[in-house]
Amino acid sequence: MAISSLLFTPHLPLFTTKPFLYHKTRSNRTSISVQSELRSANPSHTSTSHVSRPDHKLSWRDELQQVFHQPDKDSTTGGIDLEDIDEESFQRLIDKRCVDNVRMLIVDAVQNAKAGHPGMALGLAEVGYCLYRHVLRYNPRNPTWFNRDRFVLSAGHGCLLQYVCLHLAGFDSVQLEDLRRLCKLGSRTPGHPENTVTDGIEVTTGPLGQGVPNAVGLALAEAHLAARFNKPDCTIVDHRTYCIMGDGCAMEGISHEAASLAAHWKLHKLTLIYDDNHNTIDGPTTLAFSEDISTRFKALGWNTITVDNTQGDISSFKDAISAAINETGKPTFIRVKTLIGRLSEKEGTSKAHHGTFDEADVRKMREKVKWNNREPFNVIPMVYREMQIQANHGETLEREWHSKLDYFRNKYPKEAAEFEVLLNGGLPTDWESCLPKWSASDPVDATRGYSEKCVNQLVKALPGLIGGSADLASSNKVYLHGYQDFSQPESPWGRNIRYGVREHAMAGISNGIALHKSGLIPFAATFLIFSDYMKNSMRLSALSHAGVLYILTHDSIGLGEDGPTHQPVEQLAGLRAVPRLLVFRPADGNETAGAYRVAIKSRDVPSVISLSRQKVAANVEGTLATEVEQGGYIVSDNSGKSLPELILIGTGSELCLCEGSANVLRKEGWKVRVVSLVCWQLFDRQPAEYKEHVLPSGVTKRVSVEAGSPMGWREYVGGEGVVIGVDTFGASGAYLDTFKKFGFTEENVVKVAKSLLHQ
Amino acid sequence: MAISSLLFTPHLPLFTTKPFLYHKTRSNRTSISVQSELRSANPSHTSTSHVSRPDHKLSWRDELQQVFHQPDKDSTTGGIDLEDIDEESFQRLIDKRCVDNVRMLIVDAVQNAKAGHPGMALGLAEVGYCLYRHVLRYNPRNPTWFNRDRFVLSAGHGCLLQYVCLHLAGFDSVQLEDLRRLCKLGSRTPGHPENTVTDGIEVTTGPLGQGVPNAVGLALAEAHLAARFNKPDCTIVDHRTYCIMGDGCAMEGISHEAASLAAHWKLHKLTLIYDDNHNTIDGPTTLAFSEDISTRFKALGWNTITVDNTQGDISSFKDAISAAINETGKPTFIRVKTLIGRLSEKEGTSKAHHGTFDEADVRKMREKVKWNNREPFNVIPMVYREMQIQANHGETLEREWHSKLDYFRNKYPKEAAEFEVLLNGGLPTDWESCLPKWSASDPVDATRGYSEKCVNQLVKALPGLIGGSADLASSNKVYLHGYQDFSQPESPWGRNIRYGVREHAMAGISNGIALHKSGLIPFAATFLIFSDYMKNSMRLSALSHAGVLYILTHDSIGLGEDGPTHQPVEQLAGLRAVPRLLVFRPADGNETAGAYRVAIKSRDVPSVISLSRQKVAANVEGTLATEVEQGGYIVSDNSGKSLPELILIGTGSELCLCEGSANVLRKEGWKVRVVSLVCWQLFDRQPAEYKEHVLPSGVTKRVSVEAGSPMGWREYVGGEGVVIGVDTFGASGAYLDTFKKFGFTEENVVKVAKSLLHQ
Repeated sequence: MAISSLLFTPHLPLFTTKPFLYHKTRSNRTSISVQSELRSANPSHTSTSHVSRPDHKLSWRDELQQVFHQPDKDSTTGGIDLEDIDEESFQRLIDKRCVDNVRMLIVDAVQNAKAGHPGMALGLAEVGYCLYRHVLRYNPRNPTWFNRDRFVLSAGHGCLLQYVCLHLAGFDSVQLEDLRRLCKLGSRTPGHPENTVTDGIEVTTGPLGQGVPNAVGLALAEAHLAARFNKPDCTIVDHRTYCIMGDGCAMEGISHEAASLAAHWKLHKLTLIYDDNHNTIDGPTTLAFSEDISTRFKALGWNTITVDNTQGDISSFKDAISAAINETGKPTFIRVKTLIGRLSEKEGTSKAHHGTFDEADVRKMREKVKWNNREPFNVIPMVYREMQIQANHGETLEREWHSKLDYFRNKYPKEAAEFEVLLNGGLPTDWESCLPKWSASDPVDATRGYSEKCVNQLVKALPGLIGGSADLASSNKVYLHGYQDFSQPESPWGRNIRYGVREHAMAGISNGIALHKSGLIPFAATFLIFSDYMKNSMRLSALSHAGVLYILTHDSIGLGEDGPTHQPVEQLAGLRAVPRLLVFRPADGNETAGAYRVAIKSRDVPSVISLSRQKVAANVEGTLATEVEQGGYIVSDNSGKSLPELILIGTGSELCLCEGSANVLRKEGWKVRVVSLVCWQLFDRQPAEYKEHVLPSGVTKRVSVEAGSPMGWREYVGGEGVVIGVDTFGASGAYLDTFKKFGFTEENVVKVAKSLLHQ
Repeated sequence: MAISSLLFTPHLPLFTTKPFLYHKTRSNRTSISVQSELRSANPSHTSTSHVSRPDHKLSWRDELQQVFHQPDKDSTTGGIDLEDIDEESFQRLIDKRCVDNVRMLIVDAVQNAKAGHPGMALGLAEVGYCLYRHVLRYNPRNPTWFNRDRFVLSAGHGCLLQYVCLHLAGFDSVQLEDLRRLCKLGSRTPGHPENTVTDGIEVTTGPLGQGVPNAVGLALAEAHLAARFNKPDCTIVDHRTYCIMGDGCAMEGISHEAASLAAHWKLHKLTLIYDDNHNTIDGPTTLAFSEDISTRFKALGWNTITVDNTQGDISSFKDAISAAINETGKPTFIRVKTLIGRLSEKEGTSKAHHGTFDEADVRKMREKVKWNNREPFNVIPMVYREMQIQANHGETLEREWHSKLDYFRNKYPKEAAEFEVLLNGGLPTDWESCLPKWSASDPVDATRGYSEKCVNQLVKALPGLIGGSADLASSNKVYLHGYQDFSQPESPWGRNIRYGVREHAMAGISNGIALHKSGLIPFAATFLIFSDYMKNSMRLSALSHAGVLYILTHDSIGLGEDGPTHQPVEQLAGLRAVPRLLVFRPADGNETAGAYRVAIKSRDVPSVISLSRQKVAANVEGTLATEVEQGGYIVSDNSGKSLPELILIGTGSELCLCEGSANVLRKEGWKVRVVSLVCWQLFDRQPAEYKEHVLPSGVTKRVSVEAGSPMGWREYVGGEGVVIGVDTFGASGAYLDTFKKFGFTEENVVKVAKSLLHQ
């Protein structure tokens, strides 16, 4: 078979055919016989594995007859007599029947759930099946095997296709029962795929376009680690990344940004499959899309291939995959022309995009594939066994990989030690001690300056730290000095990533790097204001447990001259409202180090570290890196054992202002406490006693000082407190002038405080 | 002159040369003479106009000698003897000298401000000058003349170039004093251009990429209105849109989305000028950009032109503009190769991007253009006069346009009446009466369903209502039934816009439509969750006073099966924190109508109308469209003249839940008030007495019920109140199941309320 001779690596055949199934006759014809003992070549992992499957009561021969309905051979085998057929043709028939089964499961699941998106899933059944049966290297018994291929369904609404494939491939996470529970509360088959819910799902998708940068991030992670760890005699990092995107993904700007970077980085092990079905929700794509998309990708630097038809035959798609694998200088874009809602009366129209089919339509679909007598959710046992070939193949590959890893450990112990730190999450013992410390007498800097020192220490201690900026490396101060830029083929081991001016893709790629789950700790930097450009990806970091560090500088009107378009005001509030996202706004060097400490430790939680452009007034006496973990703490207090008369609560560059103002008030005899509320989310989850200790309910005179939106501060200042914030868009001007205009001066804070104290 | 024979319309020459300046000799040579009376062809609007300018004390001949430094003719005139020169060459010399002056003003302003972005401004000086001197049709004495060409500087950090051009062209908004006050607090020359600050700036730019969709929106508005109002004998809508974008804009996904749509819509009167200077902040573009950008634009459907050099000569750029104007089927992309920081020692490097030059560098720059003896901010009077030619031309065009409008009024009174409604802001008398009303007995619907009825009434009453969805028209229910799709050449008069899956461009284009300031009222629709994709453009709506209506449906976990990737949780909080953005979450039909009423009236304020996917429980007795204007009001109360014991505060689909829960409590004898807080921002700006009336400080037992983030609710429930919200990402499941899981049931609300009441 031509295709099986394509070797992915010297050791690993790409497409696993069934060399043990047939007796070849001299005439190169195949007569079918059942060699069940060969089918069970890996006896420990056949249908008797821990994955629960329906019993296989039929003999193989009976099953084949049932599968192919020989009396109706015209419709099921294309008129081919099974007794007189070569191996390739026979595999084609099997593939076709498996695809029928995939389609029927999709229809059954949608009808049962009365919800879901069958259109794309039906159209892509051949592609999905082919990937899981012939292309992807995975081990369903260990879905997180490091060296597996990564697959991303950017068009997440087509998840039913993936659920069905995962089920057939033997993933424990998707049983038939899970297919029956599609879109039900608490099921493992939610309406869009979530990596935290379903093993075998690599990333959470649904918001269109996002999967493309995720896939780019996964491919980048692979290329980077391969460059760092592979040896001429030992390839321990070697897998590919596949991504399916639909028309919606193709239109979204984020996919374009990511595609531009993928080509720039020459991520040749990335294959992007474009489901060109000419339909979106509102109708045919001609309503809003008239690009020559292949030429566009070519202009970006991609290898492009078009597959004109997959219906009923996967061979041209397989050929395209082979070509992609042979391309070693560019990522490959495969445009696959499909029919949305294939089989249904709605076929080829946007009506098939989502929702159920009417019963007559279902009946007709079943007739078309000779499925009439089968119950819903029926799986031909042959299909399970067919898919198991690939699963078994994956298991073999994993075993081989472990052998290689042993070899690597023995021959390259130093590199292996680092590699294992990564595989174990990326945090070596005692990494925290690398973080710098500051004393109140140290020269002051902007918090982005403190951050620069932290990051450049962390990169030495953390083998997985990698990241960059959306063309603001010098302003964000995140460049890893002494480390190269990630670049292929020049320096894929480089740990600085140059994202260009592409914030959204940067965040999506960072999610992919994090969800590669290989101990890489990605950071993504830009101005805080431009978090607006990557908001959805940041949300997905939190939702999908991707521990990305967002380093966001120029974090208030304090950035000065660039003015309202660049001055963040409401961004902190918006980010603080995102569930599971930690937002730190450190006040000085020690708090910056403390923020990194918590952010790095929180490997399944993303963090924002919000940093000033301008120098802060001081390294505050009383700030502590370790206290950052509580989210809020007492920085200073002159009230001794009694309660203070007033609490000033600040964050970031305004904490110094609180401290300065407190000192003015203290000189006048007032008892004043200063609290740093460096991370609301961490403070909120502290025990009630601790919160009461820091912000005693008996002290109702409280002033918060933060150069951002007042939104949310009432929670901490209470009903009688005063919030000093910014509720307009700021103004262009020198930093001290803007701060003065908006009331961020000691004079104003003292005035506000006194008006409270004198009440 | 070849180029002047290019007619933009039959009536209007594109490039205005100086037909009155020179005596042509028989030998087609030009001897210079001064015909000041011809220079003052429009005596009321020459240098004696209200625009204050330095006195012109020099004679024209003296000035020319000074300008061209004849003794140094090698460097200033390229060796050409002014006495022996043809008209075109002479114009070239003048142009060149004007460009020198533009550059020197840029340098002076940056040095004086010790801030700003000179690099791009210097590199594009020829292009900027050429546009304002030879291309754009505008009248500085009436910067808002309807039929002016629109110019957008998407690379907003280059605004100094635009400020200088506006100054030289005679815009009152930028005096020399304003150039001296660059980036100073309160100046008319902020760090990035703001249309609300400086006349002559069409849109607010700075966040990269945004100007491109703005320009697309402006061009769409022109094409749409031209199709609706122009007559074979009377063209009253006819202008072009020009946009400059830099490398950063080119990388941003939003520009790609917008470019794709511009080509799809065949916006041939749009010209996008790409400043190809090979540099971004972090270094050469090769760090992160390796596209064949012209081919990419061609693949999208653009006409593409490359101008290899503009240094010292604008003729090839002018030729490109001519070609763009001749192209009548596609928008035109002009790639102009420039040198960032032209003249400086930093020329051609990213170091020139922002910041001042050292003094030696400034000296050398001045030497290069023979500027040594001039004071900072010097303008050669010739330059003002040269620019005034274009300004005068624009004034003539405006006069001609007014004549046309008179003709149009006489001949087509009906159309003219509609056109004038648009020019006056788009709100005809009594438009509000079109809004439907509902009574409590009417069948219930989702609020998106009520919205559909409102929008389809509004479109009949408001000639300017135009908009669409990012491929969710059927889900958002915003299709304007009976109106066509905007499409060229088929139906540019269509008022439904098909954005495809491009939320970010949709919002940016909507800003452009709104800022066309021609009475068009754009709406942009998608799911609330995908506001994340267009956050920065929404912010810019608010900042730039673009009264866009954002119709955002599927506004809570109540959307059900699609699950966490599609369930908005924190979006309302994030949007409410945006200054000047009104966020409405109406509860039923009447509140939906009320939200539209305020949103439409607020023509310089953007609004979000947040709508449910699921049916609401009832048309609530007590809701009123007119009350929406207060932002919050009492819906029901059984406490008579005394204070209630408890206040339930709800929004949107949860208001019914409050009402139902209140009724349960009332039956048990409690005095309960229900308050609808439909728009926080409007409520916040009510007088203190009104707020006290609705939420009396004496009632501390308050419960808020909103299926979204708790962020910000403390402001309304007070320190003792309880916030029922969602602080995770929701869950995939049937709507009632998810609502139950998160506590949005009468049972739970009553339970929470009682626990408060029993305290």
